[in-house]
Amino acid sequence: MELHPDVEHLAMLLGTWRGKGSGHYPTIEDFEYFEEVTFGHVGKPFIAYSQKTRDAATELPLHSEAGYFRPVGTTAVELVLVQPSGIVEIHDGILDGTTLRMESTAVLTTPTAKSVTTVHRMIAVGESTLSYDVHMAAVGLPLQHHLSAELHRQ
Amino acid sequence: MELHPDVEHLAMLLGTWRGKGSGHYPTIEDFEYFEEVTFGHVGKPFIAYSQKTRDAATELPLHSEAGYFRPVGTTAVELVLVQPSGIVEIHDGILDGTTLRMESTAVLTTPTAKSVTTVHRMIAVGESTLSYDVHMAAVGLPLQHHLSAELHRQ
Repeated sequence: MELHPDVEHLAMLLGTWRGKGSGHYPTIEDFEYFEEVTFGHVGKPFIAYSQKTRDAATELPLHSEAGYFRPVGTTAVELVLVQPSGIVEIHDGILDGTTLRMESTAVLTTPTAKSVTTVHRMIAVGESTLSYDVHMAAVGLPLQHHLSAELHRQ
Repeated sequence: MELHPDVEHLAMLLGTWRGKGSGHYPTIEDFEYFEEVTFGHVGKPFIAYSQKTRDAATELPLHSEAGYFRPVGTTAVELVLVQPSGIVEIHDGILDGTTLRMESTAVLTTPTAKSVTTVHRMIAVGESTLSYDVHMAAVGLPLQHHLSAELHRQ
């Protein structure tokens, strides 16, 4: 399937990436994880994103999320994302070279989910690596660093 | 991976389903589609949902969506769902036998997405079939029937 021309500038994301990450937040124990991320396309003007992590010690499933990147011209992007913890995120993003900087414009949670109000997501793509950082404001605490990982193209 | 006991009453959803559906809305041409739906689990208290459709005439990719079902006790469910058209949905649902009836409590869209304000989703699981109906209020029109499909367990 040929890549839609509207997402050509996001082609550096496409493929499967694996690696290791770590997370921390004042209300939880620090943790490390193995991660697999896939960015795919079906010839339409969006990039499908899915992600799964496993606990680095036990290898048990930890987190997952899914979403779609929607280009707005060649330097902006919208992201819609969903998490099994009952969280949906909408982001506005800016593409600067091969770095995507996204800030949530809306985060909604289901009635039984933990409160999350703001998420910032940065994704930087190198020659064969993808690194990211996630900042999060949750459970009444201010926006702060939560996750970072470095993944390698498979 | 053993099923988490909190989602045992949703086990009838698990697996891959394929079949045909049709859609209509006052602002678009009627359409028919082939669909594949997967409900999966990783041993945690949620069910992962993903879906893809292809145009029944051209077999080209049409729609996709992804989300997570979160049980609340044994008769209620929360659903978070995301669509590449720039839409996120949060639903409250009720399980009645093997029929899930979900009504959106929030629908948010990205700045460039079409307006959708309310979505109702009904999923009924039979012995080897899964049928669903989607009602939608979009682009200023009242809530009305949009999609129905009958899928078969693979």
